[in-house]
Amino acid sequence: MSSAPVQPATPSLADALVEVQAEIDRRFDALLAVPDDARARLYQAMRHAAIGGGKRLRPLLVFATARLFDVDPDQAGRAATALEAIHVYSLVHDDLPAMDDDDLRHGKATVHKAYDEATAILAGDCLHALAFEVLADPATHPDAGVRAELIADLARASGPAGMAGGQMMDLVAEGETFDLGTVTRLQQLKTGALICAAVEAGAILGRVSPEQRTPLRGYAHDLGLAFQIVDDLMDVEGDEELAGKKLRKDEAAGKETFVSLLGVPRAREQSRMLVDQALDHLRHYGAEADLLRQIARFVVERDR
Amino acid sequence: MSSAPVQPATPSLADALVEVQAEIDRRFDALLAVPDDARARLYQAMRHAAIGGGKRLRPLLVFATARLFDVDPDQAGRAATALEAIHVYSLVHDDLPAMDDDDLRHGKATVHKAYDEATAILAGDCLHALAFEVLADPATHPDAGVRAELIADLARASGPAGMAGGQMMDLVAEGETFDLGTVTRLQQLKTGALICAAVEAGAILGRVSPEQRTPLRGYAHDLGLAFQIVDDLMDVEGDEELAGKKLRKDEAAGKETFVSLLGVPRAREQSRMLVDQALDHLRHYGAEADLLRQIARFVVERDR
Repeated sequence: MSSAPVQPATPSLADALVEVQAEIDRRFDALLAVPDDARARLYQAMRHAAIGGGKRLRPLLVFATARLFDVDPDQAGRAATALEAIHVYSLVHDDLPAMDDDDLRHGKATVHKAYDEATAILAGDCLHALAFEVLADPATHPDAGVRAELIADLARASGPAGMAGGQMMDLVAEGETFDLGTVTRLQQLKTGALICAAVEAGAILGRVSPEQRTPLRGYAHDLGLAFQIVDDLMDVEGDEELAGKKLRKDEAAGKETFVSLLGVPRAREQSRMLVDQALDHLRHYGAEADLLRQIARFVVERDR
Repeated sequence: MSSAPVQPATPSLADALVEVQAEIDRRFDALLAVPDDARARLYQAMRHAAIGGGKRLRPLLVFATARLFDVDPDQAGRAATALEAIHVYSLVHDDLPAMDDDDLRHGKATVHKAYDEATAILAGDCLHALAFEVLADPATHPDAGVRAELIADLARASGPAGMAGGQMMDLVAEGETFDLGTVTRLQQLKTGALICAAVEAGAILGRVSPEQRTPLRGYAHDLGLAFQIVDDLMDVEGDEELAGKKLRKDEAAGKETFVSLLGVPRAREQSRMLVDQALDHLRHYGAEADLLRQIARFVVERDR
C-alpha cells in the first residue's frame, strides 16, 4: 500500500467558512474563560464581542495562505485568532458613541449597548493586548524569530501607519471632500492593512522570504480594495436586516466613498477588475491556492 | 595607564529622573513624527499624551534594573519607551468621560479635552500598538527570543490578567464594599503589574533566568503596592494644583482605598514597611542597585 503524502483536497469555500468560524469561536472560548472575581463582566464583554459573529474573513485568509506552505494548522489557528482579536477590538471601539455610534453589530447589540461604554473601551483594549499575548506565546511558533516577525507586522498593520491611521482619516473625512486617491489610501489603511497582515501571517509562518511574498502581497492588496468597494456597494444597495448593522451612514455623514465618487456601475466594474488582478497574482500557484481564489471570487459576488 | 573597566558611578535619583524624562521625550518625539496627511491630528494627540509629562517611573525602573546587568542603554531605552507607551495609553483611556472623566493630567488638558473623544480613543489604541511595534523591532534586541519574551510579558501585564483587569475591578468598585484583600489584588493588577513588567523588562534584557529574577520580582511587587498606598495618601492629603490632577475622587465615588480601609497612620506605616521589604529583596546586590534603592525610598518620601 502506498503511503505517499497527499495534498488534502481543497475544501469548498462554504465548508472552509463554517470550519474557520467554529474554530475561531472555540479558540476565543478557551482563551476567555470567565474568572470568578470582579473582572467577570470584562471577560463576558470580550466574549460578547469575539464569539459568534462575523465572516472571519481575516482568519480564513491566514488559513488559506498557510495551506500553500504546509503550515501546522494549530500555528495557523493561533495567528488567525490574533488577527481576528485585533479586528474585533477595532469594531468594539469603532462602534462607540464617540466614534460611529452603532447599536447593532452582526445582528446583536454592540458591546457598549449590551454592557456600557467603559466596559466596551476596556474590552477592546484587552482584546488588543490578547492578540499580542497569543502571538508571543511559544505555542504559536517554536522559532522566536517567526513570532517576533508576526508581532512586528501586526503591530504596524494595526497602528497609526495602518488600521488606526485609516480610522483617523475616516473620522476627519466628515465634511471634507476627499478625492479618489485619498479615499483609496484611507481604505487601504483602514481595512486593507489588516487583510494584508492576514495573508502576510500565513506567509511568515510558512517561512517565505519577504522577496518571495510579492505575489501574495499583490493578491492581498487588490483583494482588500475590492472588498471595500463591494462593502460600499452593499452599503448603498443592501438590506439592513440582512446586513445586521446600520447602512447608508456614509451618505448621511457626507463622506465620500468609492460609490459616491465612481457611481454604482463603475464601482462594480472596478471591484471585478481588482479581483481579476488579485487572481492573476496567484498565477504561479497550482491547486493549493484554490481556496485563496475562491475567497477572491466570493468577495465580489457576495453583494448579489 | 590602567584601562580596567570601571562601573559608572550611580547617578543621583534627581539626575536620573531628569535624564530619563528627557530621553523618553526624545524617543517619543522621534517615533511620532507628524505625517502630512489626514492622520496629522491623530499623531498630534499622541504627542500631546506622550511627550512632556509624568514622572516616568516605569522607564526609570527599566533603566535602573538594566544597570545591574550592563544592558546596552539603547536597548533599555527602547524597552522603557514601550512600557511608558502602554502606561500613557491607559491614562488616555482612563481619563475618558465614560471612565474617570478627568479634564486634567500632568497639569494640562486630557487628550479628549484638548482634542475630542474619538481622537483620544484612537490615540490610546495607537500608543498601545506602538509599544509592541517598538519591542518587536530588531533594534530592541538582536535575539528574537528576548524580544518575544519582552512582548509576552508586557502583553500579559497590560491585558485582562494585569492592568486592564485591575481597571475593570476599579470600575466595578464603585458602590461595592471591597475588603483589604480585594483592594490589594485590584491595585496589584491596576498599577502593580506594569511596575513589575518594567523591572522584568530590565532583567529580560539582562538575560537573567526566570529563577534568578525572584529578588527583583519581590522588589517590584512590594514597590508597586507601596507606590499605590502613597498615591492613596496623597489623594487624601494632597494639593490639586501641585498634583496637576483632580484629587479625592475615590472618596466621592464611595470607593474603598488603602487609606479608607486602614486609616492614614496605618496606611503610612504599611507603605514604609513595604519599602523596607523591597530594599531587603536587594540585599545580595551591591552598589549597582543603589538607583533601585533610591527609587524605593523616593516612592514613600514623595508625599511629604
